[in-house]
Amino acid sequence: MPKALSLKGCFPPIPTPFDKKGRVDHHQLANNLEKWQRTDLAGFVVLGSNGEAVLLNRNERVAVWKTAGQTISRGRRFIAGTGCESTVETLDLTEKAAALGAQAAMVVTPHYYRARMDHAALMHHYTMVADRSPIPIILYNVPASTNLDMSAELAIALSKHPNIIGMKESSGNVAKMGLIVREAPSHFQVLAGSGSFLLPALSVGAVGGVMALAAIAPNAVVEILRLFEAGRLEDAKKTQLRLIPTNNAVTSRFGIPGFKAAMDLLGMYGGPVRSPLLPLDKAARDEVAGILTEAGLL
Amino acid sequence: MPKALSLKGCFPPIPTPFDKKGRVDHHQLANNLEKWQRTDLAGFVVLGSNGEAVLLNRNERVAVWKTAGQTISRGRRFIAGTGCESTVETLDLTEKAAALGAQAAMVVTPHYYRARMDHAALMHHYTMVADRSPIPIILYNVPASTNLDMSAELAIALSKHPNIIGMKESSGNVAKMGLIVREAPSHFQVLAGSGSFLLPALSVGAVGGVMALAAIAPNAVVEILRLFEAGRLEDAKKTQLRLIPTNNAVTSRFGIPGFKAAMDLLGMYGGPVRSPLLPLDKAARDEVAGILTEAGLL
Amino acid sequence: MPKALSLKGCFPPIPTPFDKKGRVDHHQLANNLEKWQRTDLAGFVVLGSNGEAVLLNRNERVAVWKTAGQTISRGRRFIAGTGCESTVETLDLTEKAAALGAQAAMVVTPHYYRARMDHAALMHHYTMVADRSPIPIILYNVPASTNLDMSAELAIALSKHPNIIGMKESSGNVAKMGLIVREAPSHFQVLAGSGSFLLPALSVGAVGGVMALAAIAPNAVVEILRLFEAGRLEDAKKTQLRLIPTNNAVTSRFGIPGFKAAMDLLGMYGGPVRSPLLPLDKAARDEVAGILTEAGLL
Amino acid sequence: MPKALSLKGCFPPIPTPFDKKGRVDHHQLANNLEKWQRTDLAGFVVLGSNGEAVLLNRNERVAVWKTAGQTISRGRRFIAGTGCESTVETLDLTEKAAALGAQAAMVVTPHYYRARMDHAALMHHYTMVADRSPIPIILYNVPASTNLDMSAELAIALSKHPNIIGMKESSGNVAKMGLIVREAPSHFQVLAGSGSFLLPALSVGAVGGVMALAAIAPNAVVEILRLFEAGRLEDAKKTQLRLIPTNNAVTSRFGIPGFKAAMDLLGMYGGPVRSPLLPLDKAARDEVAGILTEAGLL
Repeated sequence: MPKALSLKGCFPPIPTPFDKKGRVDHHQLANNLEKWQRTDLAGFVVLGSNGEAVLLNRNERVAVWKTAGQTISRGRRFIAGTGCESTVETLDLTEKAAALGAQAAMVVTPHYYRARMDHAALMHHYTMVADRSPIPIILYNVPASTNLDMSAELAIALSKHPNIIGMKESSGNVAKMGLIVREAPSHFQVLAGSGSFLLPALSVGAVGGVMALAAIAPNAVVEILRLFEAGRLEDAKKTQLRLIPTNNAVTSRFGIPGFKAAMDLLGMYGGPVRSPLLPLDKAARDEVAGILTEAGLL
Repeated sequence: MPKALSLKGCFPPIPTPFDKKGRVDHHQLANNLEKWQRTDLAGFVVLGSNGEAVLLNRNERVAVWKTAGQTISRGRRFIAGTGCESTVETLDLTEKAAALGAQAAMVVTPHYYRARMDHAALMHHYTMVADRSPIPIILYNVPASTNLDMSAELAIALSKHPNIIGMKESSGNVAKMGLIVREAPSHFQVLAGSGSFLLPALSVGAVGGVMALAAIAPNAVVEILRLFEAGRLEDAKKTQLRLIPTNNAVTSRFGIPGFKAAMDLLGMYGGPVRSPLLPLDKAARDEVAGILTEAGLL
Repeated sequence: MPKALSLKGCFPPIPTPFDKKGRVDHHQLANNLEKWQRTDLAGFVVLGSNGEAVLLNRNERVAVWKTAGQTISRGRRFIAGTGCESTVETLDLTEKAAALGAQAAMVVTPHYYRARMDHAALMHHYTMVADRSPIPIILYNVPASTNLDMSAELAIALSKHPNIIGMKESSGNVAKMGLIVREAPSHFQVLAGSGSFLLPALSVGAVGGVMALAAIAPNAVVEILRLFEAGRLEDAKKTQLRLIPTNNAVTSRFGIPGFKAAMDLLGMYGGPVRSPLLPLDKAARDEVAGILTEAGLL
Repeated sequence: MPKALSLKGCFPPIPTPFDKKGRVDHHQLANNLEKWQRTDLAGFVVLGSNGEAVLLNRNERVAVWKTAGQTISRGRRFIAGTGCESTVETLDLTEKAAALGAQAAMVVTPHYYRARMDHAALMHHYTMVADRSPIPIILYNVPASTNLDMSAELAIALSKHPNIIGMKESSGNVAKMGLIVREAPSHFQVLAGSGSFLLPALSVGAVGGVMALAAIAPNAVVEILRLFEAGRLEDAKKTQLRLIPTNNAVTSRFGIPGFKAAMDLLGMYGGPVRSPLLPLDKAARDEVAGILTEAGLL
């Protein structure tokens, strides 16, 4: 088997900028990417959950990938979030993203018919996509959104497929991550799905993470990885613990509205969210500012 | 306030027929509708959860509504399932469906960002859609798919909107249905979301149901409603209890694959499902046949 | 098979009165029972969830049953809540309750080791208890407390046991209740586990209910049953809908503290709850009073 | 504040041995403890979830603590599981355990009335127990059994109490563990609640673990802790990953029956479980043996 694309490192699932009229703002998208490219982030996930992918139509998604493909420099990974409910549509979007420069596709578990999404159905879905996709596939498990938790058994079975190279695991179940690392072939790479458990995930063999926190505190998350690799556990722990409130502010606590508010506060472009998401009110925005200040980011 | 569109009666959420190549089969769609129109069904929900709506692209959805609009006769309700994650896209689809003849739109709760879908966000979403929609809106609560349970409090608040005329409640929580009936204004009509609790729902004031069972056993579900209205409770109960295994076979037990298999067995067109849904194997299909036979439907 | 004990009618799961020092107040217990015995309640469940059974030690439980056995008149049912985690202890308590006059025992599903409480384990537990119990057993399913939902399949399997005569179903799943009514032998009687769905449960074949509401509004719940049996559905519905806010106040909304507060307000003895339950604050107590007033109970 | 009792190290929640007649076997209990005391385990949790505490009556619990108190040597911790639903009964058992030599009490969240177990109720419960207990209290969060997840906010608030010295966190949420470590005062010590995430928990500041795995593979879990402290992360990871299947076999996969079967296979005394727990069948027992063999434990 040829060597798989490396997923080592820290990846932000980037937000999609909208202008005041609610249209995708490609200028700000490119600007954000260029700023992040001055850091040591390993690459970008474009149109994951944090990119409000489910709130964009097909044309908008394609246009976002086009801008990303033109802006992301050689040497950084361009990973496209292409999963949707339909197997055929997932494949279609994956092919489109690949044509626009994506090096891998991150595919969320279909879930609307979750009572039918058993081992056989998900095996069939992912196998069909991976068989035909021109780029490698990364499994994406995010029960907070899908209310479906991909079992370790299924992830391990899928890890045998030569065109499935990794998994973003957002459930926070590090015991499961350890079991998958243990049982999967070496080309299969596990990524922490949130900055709140990056270090614990590394301790059981994850190679990095896809996490909103990487967009907000790129240097700090990269530092956790470096300290861990240098065996400087106590320092890694300090940085990890320092970042937990910031991580929570841009994920579980205030969601994408908090993520975008933090971007704005940090001099990047966050901008408005799309309905039915609602913008943060002033009190929440102030709280985000306070959390960033306390973490030394502002 | 002008009199609201009546939702009294039994409505099947119709399946979307696909041909062997996986394309929407409009001929079979029309055929099925014509057969159902020989019964006393009050109308049809076109592209609800059972219509595999999330597995169709925009063009396919519009085409399905077009065929439905041309086939559904005057005097029957044409209700379009138009809800998606984005408020703007929901409104766009609702306008399109209205232009093609839909008399009302059934709007499922957005749910991918469920941690943010609090009272305020859902109030905003539904109010914005209802304010601008040219046709009345029916709330659609289906926690089995969305993992989000619309509260009685929210439903009651939304029931005050003049362009929100009802709710399909699929959670099976009849106590909640009773509370909503009690508190909502009279133009707001509650519909049972499954044939398994039609009679209990009627007993607390529901006016009918939207249920897969209505596609499989239209005469029997209409009979439950008639017997209930005639005060013939014992007979209504007998029919209700007789149908529970059939209802479960085409919903919780075998899902849409079971629903389509039952359609085929009954001489309608069920046909294939779209991936990631998988067809029933022979043993399951035989079991569906056995259940239909035992219920006197086959 | 001899005729099973009839469970037809309305039963309150009575609260356990404590005095100011926190001891069981047997005088008030007897007083409450005597007041209820002036109504048409069919009997009493003594030491169910609403009786704070899990907060009483063994000696206290036995003493409560003793007082109940001495106070409950012939012609009313005395049902003891005897279920605990251990099979042997459940049987031991059941025998004790029987010796003190209980005519049936209501046995909650063991649940602390819920991952192991599969079909086989629960079959074994209930069969062992029913085989040896001197009085008939009533299954008790209350997922809100146990986070374990007894399947229809298991209930139906257990309903074949000659010494298992019924089920209190508190999940509110009336479709499941209908399925059980349909499949169980005739000696097996289904009881609604909450006043909020008494009428819907009756519509699919329940014979009555065990519900906190019966302690608060005994005449009204008995009226629902009578109106239903008389085929006066519209009137039954009105009473059912009128009582929903009261029912919620003494169950899901304010729990046992609300239940006891309502008892106090109605001139019965509610009294304090045991820690970790906390008493209602003044605002909540006023709200309960308002709800009782609006329902015409105060 | 005086220095808190150290909880550093690995602790098994020991199983309670029963003889063939189902009585507690104190001889085997002492034997097991003596064998474990030849290892570097830091101490023992006596009558936690794995000790089938909910299946023992009060007299049996006291007798078990008495034997433990007589057998556990100086220098090892004796931690008693004393939590039950009632605050007063929890305190009573805690005092009893203290009198029998327990150095700390582990108190599970009360949960039967979980809808009422809000921040205020649990604050009250734990504060009342900690105020009066003669020995320090360890919080115990185990949602798999209680279906109630103690929030980080509550744990942090309780960590301020001088007599609450730590927490066993069995949810596996290491991000939460990190947040608690970060915010709690230094006397408050976090313990991993399962061997499957010991190393990840250590990486965010846990001081050890309470885990069934420690009874089965005491040397290996102690080794993980030592390797971690020596900065030998790669070796620690190897040991951690090697043990995951064993850990799962004696917890999530086969539960206490699997735990006791493994004890038997390893030459300790496991013996029978109490009903409603069922013994493993031959196939499952063989599987446990295979897993232990593969892990090099047999």
